[in-house]
This record gives sequence, structure tokens and C-alpha cells, in this order.
Amino acid sequence: MKAVCLLSGGLDSATALACALRDGFECYCLSFDYGQRHQVELEAASRVAGALGAAASKVIRIDLRAFGGSALTDDIAVPKGRESAEMAASIPVTYVPARNTVFLSIALAWAEALGAGDLYLGVNAVDYSGYPDCRPEYIEAFERMANLATKAGVEHTTRFRIHTPLIDLSKAEIISLGLSLGVDYSLTHSCYDPIGAQPCGRCDSCVLRRAGFAEAGLADPLEYAG
Amino acid sequence: MKAVCLLSGGLDSATALACALRDGFECYCLSFDYGQRHQVELEAASRVAGALGAAASKVIRIDLRAFGGSALTDDIAVPKGRESAEMAASIPVTYVPARNTVFLSIALAWAEALGAGDLYLGVNAVDYSGYPDCRPEYIEAFERMANLATKAGVEHTTRFRIHTPLIDLSKAEIISLGLSLGVDYSLTHSCYDPIGAQPCGRCDSCVLRRAGFAEAGLADPLEYAG
Repeated sequence: MKAVCLLSGGLDSATALACALRDGFECYCLSFDYGQRHQVELEAASRVAGALGAAASKVIRIDLRAFGGSALTDDIAVPKGRESAEMAASIPVTYVPARNTVFLSIALAWAEALGAGDLYLGVNAVDYSGYPDCRPEYIEAFERMANLATKAGVEHTTRFRIHTPLIDLSKAEIISLGLSLGVDYSLTHSCYDPIGAQPCGRCDSCVLRRAGFAEAGLADPLEYAG
Repeated sequence: MKAVCLLSGGLDSATALACALRDGFECYCLSFDYGQRHQVELEAASRVAGALGAAASKVIRIDLRAFGGSALTDDIAVPKGRESAEMAASIPVTYVPARNTVFLSIALAWAEALGAGDLYLGVNAVDYSGYPDCRPEYIEAFERMANLATKAGVEHTTRFRIHTPLIDLSKAEIISLGLSLGVDYSLTHSCYDPIGAQPCGRCDSCVLRRAGFAEAGLADPLEYAG
């Protein structure tokens, strides 16, 4: 059985891929070159797919800079040094308009062409940046739409399912799960605003990752710039 | 008020754009270079946007050939000479996996970045090729998902709405409506498998268009190859 796994190269998506492999799927990894300032994550995605033994990996280019509106794709500063309570209070400027919807839609296209019904996504609604497209109600609505959108869904040859194995886990739990499944976190990259290839240590994504390793009582294999 | 209008360059999307302008919107037209064999439609889209007076138009590249699975993007023959009853009986090989979902998702990203809540799409569930992503139940599911996916939807600054002004019209009614709104159908292009710049006259799209003009008692301004 085949599954399409969205793989950014970060800690969460690497762990979600490891879950898909644990669940017995042959994994087709999909990454996006969308004009993000942290392009270094694409190299991480390729390393992670190779190390975990994915069946295939593909990078699709889609220029979301054409629309702007986010600190990840536009000339807007990435917030630094925020606490997690502050992150949860409002949707930050690193939110990319409709990003997960665009990514999941393209993953759905690949899944249907492959004859795969299962999609894996490393979203998380506990230790997260407050993005609306990481919440369970959004995932359910996407899944429902996907089964009405497609030939395979309408003809009932495939039932599309969006798997979000990390959605209810804390960052520390995600890290422990990934380690138990053989994820090498030194290969991953989570920073929104890397300094060269080095994670900044102070963006929301770095703050959440570092707190997760600390809470799990483990050392993060990455070296941070700040 | 701004609206994002999906514009393929065909008869239906040109008419949907004319409806958005009639409804008083400033129109931002979005077209896709997705590796389709009928790339000539992109020139038609640009001509139509200019002639009708759109505020802006953008072409986004996304290579759906990377996935294959359709006669429009892969090395599969486009069916010719089918009757409309035959088209309605099953989903044809010109179906592109999840195409409208990919296009609407990217339109949603642009709409959110623009601060627009309204999207116009020229789908039709009467004289159509049997595609699942042209039906009202799909459109409703997408709209529901869009309002859960986005910062603007979740914070209630915008209510996203997918307008499908043609969904219940016959092809002849679409043509009459478009003419009443000033659409110049000589600028549009509907063929799935053009011979040079000329429509083949025999693919499902040409068959539906020709029957529509005939039923409306009007002459199609295009010259067909066959």
C-alpha cells in the first residue's frame, strides 16, 4: 500500500514519515520549493527521505512569493524570542496564506495518480505556531472535500484519508516517538530563518524545538546560532 | 471589492469573469501553466482578461505532468467524436487528478493575501465532461474547508465564498449570458487538443461548445479543424 507523505525536512514531518513507514506504507515523499526563505529545508527533506527508506521523493516548485503576505515568503521580519503562550495567542506573520491547503491539494493529485488513498501530514495542534491549517477541524474538512473532488473518491475505488499522527502530541512526545522509530534528528531542519545552514535558535520553530528536547530530557543534535 | 477569478481562457471561465465584473468586483484573474497540451489557452486567457477589463492577471506555473494520469498532461490520447450522453456516463481520461482543488487552493492563497473573500469559477454541472470537481457538493465542501484553513476565515475578517454562476446553466444559456455581458467569444479557446492554434472540433470540449452555439441559434466565431 502506497502513501503520500508531506515532508518539509523539519522535525515534525520526519516523524510523521516514520509513522507512515511504521504503519506499513510504501512512502512517496512530497516537498515544495515555494520560495521560502529557509530553502535549506529541502536538502534536509532529501536526507530524511533517504535515511528512513522512502520509496520515492519529489520536489514540486510553486512560487507562493507571487502572492506575498508572509514572513516566510516576503520581505517581512521573522519574529524572534517569543514564548509559546505568546505564539498561541494569535496567528503570527510566518503564516503563509493557505499553505497546507495548497500542499495537501497537490499531494492529493499525486495520490490519485498513484492509486494511493493515504496522505501523511506532520501537523500538530499542541506545541505549534497557531496556524489555522494545523487544527483537526480543518483536516476533517479537507478530507471530506478530497473525497468529493476526485474520480477515485467519487467512484469509491479509493477512500482518501489524511493521517495526522502527531496532532495531539506535545513536542517532547513527538521527539520521543521519532527516536523510538529510528529518526535521526541531526538530519532535520526546523528553523524559519537560518543563518547560512545554521538554525537561528530564536524563531518560533526553533523555540518550540529546543523546548521539546529540553522537556524530553534529551540533547538536540543541532547547533544553534543564537 | 476584489475577487479572484480562475480564467482558463475557455468559454466558461470567460463568462464567469464577465459575471464577476457584472457583480461589481475588481477582478484578479488567475491562470495556470500546468503542463497542459493546450497551452494556447494561456494566450486566450490573457486576451480575455484584457478585453473584459480585469484589474490584474497572473499565470502560476505548477507542473502537474510530474504526476501524470490524464490525457491533458500525459501521453494518453484525447477522446474524439463522443456524444454528450456518453460523456456524462463516466469520468473521461481528460480528467486531471484534483485539478480544480489545486487551482482553487492557489486562488485561495492569493485571495487571502489580497484581502479578497470572493472567488469565481466557471464550472458547470449540466453540459460538462463528467468531472467530479465541477459538482455543487464539491464546491460547498471546498468553501467550508477554505473558511477553516485560513487566518482570514478563522479570525472572521473574511468569509470566503466560491461563486459558480454557471453551475446550473446549459451551454446555450452560458453563451447567451456571456453575449449579454459583452464577452467576445472569438477571443476564447476551449479545445483540449488543438491543431496548432486551431480547435480540433471533435474533443469533448469542442463538441459541447459547438452544440451550445447551435442550440442557442448562434454562429461560433471560431473556425474548427475538423
